[in-house]
Amino acid sequence: MNTLLAALAGDAEVASLLSDDAQITAMLAVEKALAEASAECGWISEDAAAAVAAGINDFVPDWQALAAGMAQDGVVVPALVRRLRGLVAEPHRAAVHKGATSQDIIDTALMLQLAEVFDLYEERLSALLGQLDRLAETAGERELMAHTRMQVALPTSWGAKLASWREPLQRYLRLLLSMRRTLLVVQLGGPVGDRGSFAGQGDAIAAALALRLDLGLAAPWQATRDPIVALGNLLAMISGSLGKIGADIALLAQNEVAAVQLHGGGGSSAMAHKSNPVNAEVLVALARANAGLAGTLQQAMVHEYERSGAAWTLEWLTLPPMLLNTGASLRLGLEVLDQVELR
Amino acid sequence: MNTLLAALAGDAEVASLLSDDAQITAMLAVEKALAEASAECGWISEDAAAAVAAGINDFVPDWQALAAGMAQDGVVVPALVRRLRGLVAEPHRAAVHKGATSQDIIDTALMLQLAEVFDLYEERLSALLGQLDRLAETAGERELMAHTRMQVALPTSWGAKLASWREPLQRYLRLLLSMRRTLLVVQLGGPVGDRGSFAGQGDAIAAALALRLDLGLAAPWQATRDPIVALGNLLAMISGSLGKIGADIALLAQNEVAAVQLHGGGGSSAMAHKSNPVNAEVLVALARANAGLAGTLQQAMVHEYERSGAAWTLEWLTLPPMLLNTGASLRLGLEVLDQVELR
Amino acid sequence: MNTLLAALAGDAEVASLLSDDAQITAMLAVEKALAEASAECGWISEDAAAAVAAGINDFVPDWQALAAGMAQDGVVVPALVRRLRGLVAEPHRAAVHKGATSQDIIDTALMLQLAEVFDLYEERLSALLGQLDRLAETAGERELMAHTRMQVALPTSWGAKLASWREPLQRYLRLLLSMRRTLLVVQLGGPVGDRGSFAGQGDAIAAALALRLDLGLAAPWQATRDPIVALGNLLAMISGSLGKIGADIALLAQNEVAAVQLHGGGGSSAMAHKSNPVNAEVLVALARANAGLAGTLQQAMVHEYERSGAAWTLEWLTLPPMLLNTGASLRLGLEVLDQVELR
Amino acid sequence: MNTLLAALAGDAEVASLLSDDAQITAMLAVEKALAEASAECGWISEDAAAAVAAGINDFVPDWQALAAGMAQDGVVVPALVRRLRGLVAEPHRAAVHKGATSQDIIDTALMLQLAEVFDLYEERLSALLGQLDRLAETAGERELMAHTRMQVALPTSWGAKLASWREPLQRYLRLLLSMRRTLLVVQLGGPVGDRGSFAGQGDAIAAALALRLDLGLAAPWQATRDPIVALGNLLAMISGSLGKIGADIALLAQNEVAAVQLHGGGGSSAMAHKSNPVNAEVLVALARANAGLAGTLQQAMVHEYERSGAAWTLEWLTLPPMLLNTGASLRLGLEVLDQVELR
Repeated sequence: MNTLLAALAGDAEVASLLSDDAQITAMLAVEKALAEASAECGWISEDAAAAVAAGINDFVPDWQALAAGMAQDGVVVPALVRRLRGLVAEPHRAAVHKGATSQDIIDTALMLQLAEVFDLYEERLSALLGQLDRLAETAGERELMAHTRMQVALPTSWGAKLASWREPLQRYLRLLLSMRRTLLVVQLGGPVGDRGSFAGQGDAIAAALALRLDLGLAAPWQATRDPIVALGNLLAMISGSLGKIGADIALLAQNEVAAVQLHGGGGSSAMAHKSNPVNAEVLVALARANAGLAGTLQQAMVHEYERSGAAWTLEWLTLPPMLLNTGASLRLGLEVLDQVELR
Repeated sequence: MNTLLAALAGDAEVASLLSDDAQITAMLAVEKALAEASAECGWISEDAAAAVAAGINDFVPDWQALAAGMAQDGVVVPALVRRLRGLVAEPHRAAVHKGATSQDIIDTALMLQLAEVFDLYEERLSALLGQLDRLAETAGERELMAHTRMQVALPTSWGAKLASWREPLQRYLRLLLSMRRTLLVVQLGGPVGDRGSFAGQGDAIAAALALRLDLGLAAPWQATRDPIVALGNLLAMISGSLGKIGADIALLAQNEVAAVQLHGGGGSSAMAHKSNPVNAEVLVALARANAGLAGTLQQAMVHEYERSGAAWTLEWLTLPPMLLNTGASLRLGLEVLDQVELR
Repeated sequence: MNTLLAALAGDAEVASLLSDDAQITAMLAVEKALAEASAECGWISEDAAAAVAAGINDFVPDWQALAAGMAQDGVVVPALVRRLRGLVAEPHRAAVHKGATSQDIIDTALMLQLAEVFDLYEERLSALLGQLDRLAETAGERELMAHTRMQVALPTSWGAKLASWREPLQRYLRLLLSMRRTLLVVQLGGPVGDRGSFAGQGDAIAAALALRLDLGLAAPWQATRDPIVALGNLLAMISGSLGKIGADIALLAQNEVAAVQLHGGGGSSAMAHKSNPVNAEVLVALARANAGLAGTLQQAMVHEYERSGAAWTLEWLTLPPMLLNTGASLRLGLEVLDQVELR
Repeated sequence: MNTLLAALAGDAEVASLLSDDAQITAMLAVEKALAEASAECGWISEDAAAAVAAGINDFVPDWQALAAGMAQDGVVVPALVRRLRGLVAEPHRAAVHKGATSQDIIDTALMLQLAEVFDLYEERLSALLGQLDRLAETAGERELMAHTRMQVALPTSWGAKLASWREPLQRYLRLLLSMRRTLLVVQLGGPVGDRGSFAGQGDAIAAALALRLDLGLAAPWQATRDPIVALGNLLAMISGSLGKIGADIALLAQNEVAAVQLHGGGGSSAMAHKSNPVNAEVLVALARANAGLAGTLQQAMVHEYERSGAAWTLEWLTLPPMLLNTGASLRLGLEVLDQVELR
């Protein structure tokens, strides 16, 4: 997304958590923890683990080489591991990435990144709940004309409206917390996902790795992607509920309805009198974009064989924009609830 | 879906649970339970409740009138209620549907139908788990050449493959059980969804209604549709995981790979030697169709105001085919695992 | 789609053109024309063609057997051809379906069905254009307050609004006409799609077949599905533009805006004063449903090898509902423009 | 998209044509041409046009201010115009953007950018056709075992396979050419899209503007977005057909099938013997991503009123990634056809 568009519909904080830099940092953390866990279980020596850790500390990304490796291999890990091995003196080179496969590193690193994204989401969801509570305190008793099927229905209260906005957000906060347990787990399977490359030490190493990275433990899931898809679905539901709030605000802010007033609305290059509900509209757009991406991510469930380059790459093309869109939805939700005056 | 296509990719049992007849039966059950719950709470008299129940017992659907009402009002309930009131003698007519709105009846009736669909899904998922367990018992130790990125990788075991097929299905069984609590709840909100039309008795009536219908209790959710969307997402994940099994089987059954043999494969009108992995292919098609529908159902999250005719109708256009596709996926999954011989 | 829902959001005429019966009738027409074209080119004898035609005339569908064949083979044609061969006396049995494959019959039969669907669409689009012209004649000069970004903008005219509704419909009418040439073509490829099974007569037979069926001529396209996808895209654009009209009408008919009045709006089971813009809302729902299905149909472009059972079945799961949705959109567009009074 | 992922699945050339810089440059070209066309038609004076042009020549983007304007107004144009007016001496300030609205500038600028993207696409499509022709020359007669429904069928020729890959690409080249006429048109409507703000000079100015920008002429289409959606559909079809080629190559390159050999395949971090069909797999992923985005872009057809901030923003969230994905598909298609050796 271009910088200009990102100023409107992006999220700088999520973007930073998903940057190339953040990803490589997370991958290095995984390789280091893997070496340490491997030493702990006797799969490599303590000396080897120390040598690997030292090599990782010395690592400075050669972005051009990493990009070239990515284009060549479809994953960045082979180029990364080559470089890491170059930084580790013999006889410890073989200890780098020993028994692991690219996907172990990439998926586990993603979990580390997601843990930070979840922090941000939870913070924003909590702030949104707080905003809604404050609005309910001040305006909950106020009468609001309800509309059904786009027609005036009967009076209700702002309290009922705010409660209906609040309830799903509360649920998502709980879901995020439960996904920390079900989704944020290590991936360790080795080349074909059965831990066979760890000569019987795979389960122990995975457990030690999980502990070190503060992630959950799970059987290898390299071709069993429902937790990733479940995350995508939650993201679309978050932005969907915020899109509903946006749609409601845009409708309630119509000049003819005027049940809310928006402070700081958008200006027009041609009509000086306009105060456009820009944030509310973008919430709708983000909801629709994420809904579509969720459907596309679901296509990646058809993950052929023990590892599908096609399905996995499709995840990379869809999950990051969904994470960004969701961050932007939460950001704009906070903004628009600050701008809104309930009549 | 036409009968011929349904023979391949449909599900007669789910279709029957979602039929017009099943829907009207469920709606009548809701209207009857509502009258009884209303009497229990003193919202209508016991005599009125008995009169309503008697009227409902006498109800014979006039399909033409119901269809005409549906086309006119966008929901079938006004026509249904008119007819029901005609079957109830005064002074009890006003007790029919008293305080309720169409959506209360339609959404709650859907929950009754879904409870039966869930029975069927759970039964089939359990049977699938059993099949996979039996295959693992007999062939789990057998070596299988793993493939990653469509290339021969290293040997693994059938046990590892079967476990990766099994794990998400186990998760879905648990999710279905938990959705019985989070999704299968009554809808009772009245015209604008705040129970205001029940003059303070709404909460009590909702609780009594839930008890009578063996559904959970919840705040009105007429414009808060995330539980419906969450169901759609689960459906797409179920058919997605079965699509992954289908894709694997179609690949493993390739003549050149021959890691599985399919008994009873499809015939060709032109090539007598063919044994086509029809069920496996249809599993892939159903997975992709449901993935797309899940994305569309997500669009219905942008539910404007207190009730959106557009977003709600969109649910009706997407959820039923998803329920059918999921049933068909489970049905074909059972079939294809019966046909498959692991090499 | 259930009968009740179809009364609101379906299309009986399109449904009839896409029925099992219509499909089998079209397939028989193709088999017959194929026999005649084959005789014309010397691929079978005139006697054989006459025997095949006679067998086809005697054909009475055994729906149970056809459905069983469909479930077994993934296509209905093998069962159909078996039955047809049973109706043709030797030595002419081998002339039935000679050189052809299931897909030749199914795809070509679809084209015959689509030709009739196109008739219907063109008629309705023309009627819509006529309605819009009449509205422009009577109300085109009338002032209408324009709204941009959901806010009051500046006055415009109903003429400008109606012109913006009209223009895409005019384009779609032209596109349908051009698709008669680019899409409505014969499929004749034989088992692997290269006409090799016709021993050099394939091109001639295809040309003769096209002439007899009043379809265009094309190279075999069994794995080259862009014309089918292009149709799906057009369908989504048609229902999309009608969805825009629906959205506009629902907005303009808001009580607070009242720039249009809808006669014969939908009633509520709870609020006697309501006049709901049901048809306008359903137009929006159909637009969104078709948009999603168009995206799913696009997934079928990834059609593996010379014939993909998965991708082809996915077409069957998406194109028919799209054709129905489009028919329903046109039907409801005509209705709502009849109901609308421009203020 | 991050730099690393872009190295695999992005397109640097398209990215450059869609950059912030390219967009602002195109917008300035539109504002300048608008001033000149306005002078030509007497809507502003020649002096004013010269002053505007001089101001535009002096313009240096203040990216922070532009981004802030974008976030505030939902479009960058008000901030841009404010800055431009600051660069133009009185009495000519009012001549800047006179009569126009933000959307006139944004949509028309997009057309200028698309014209260059089309150049690139056409060049690559032509190169692909050339590659396929060369492959057909050298290997067209070679026998290839056809596969239908994932099973060995009967022998066909590489010539038939290559022709089926080629045909849709040829069609897309023609479609791109025809879209230069139907899509690459000026947008000039003024605030509510009826050219009313140009006091009768709108049609003449639009015609002069089109001539100066080498774009087609069209009625204002600010709320009539089918040409944009039609472009999205074409993009998805291009990447879809390349995804089909990718899927075929990945299947044909399976070790067990070995009908093609890929030179320069991807390496694995764990299995030295692997040669992964990375480019082929990414083609499949891009096809699926674009298919999903096409469905989402179709949702933007429901464009409410005279200008929908929600629907328009949704276009911005979907069209640019689609343009990038399509560029990447074409780029990778060229690469993979260079890597492939037909057996």
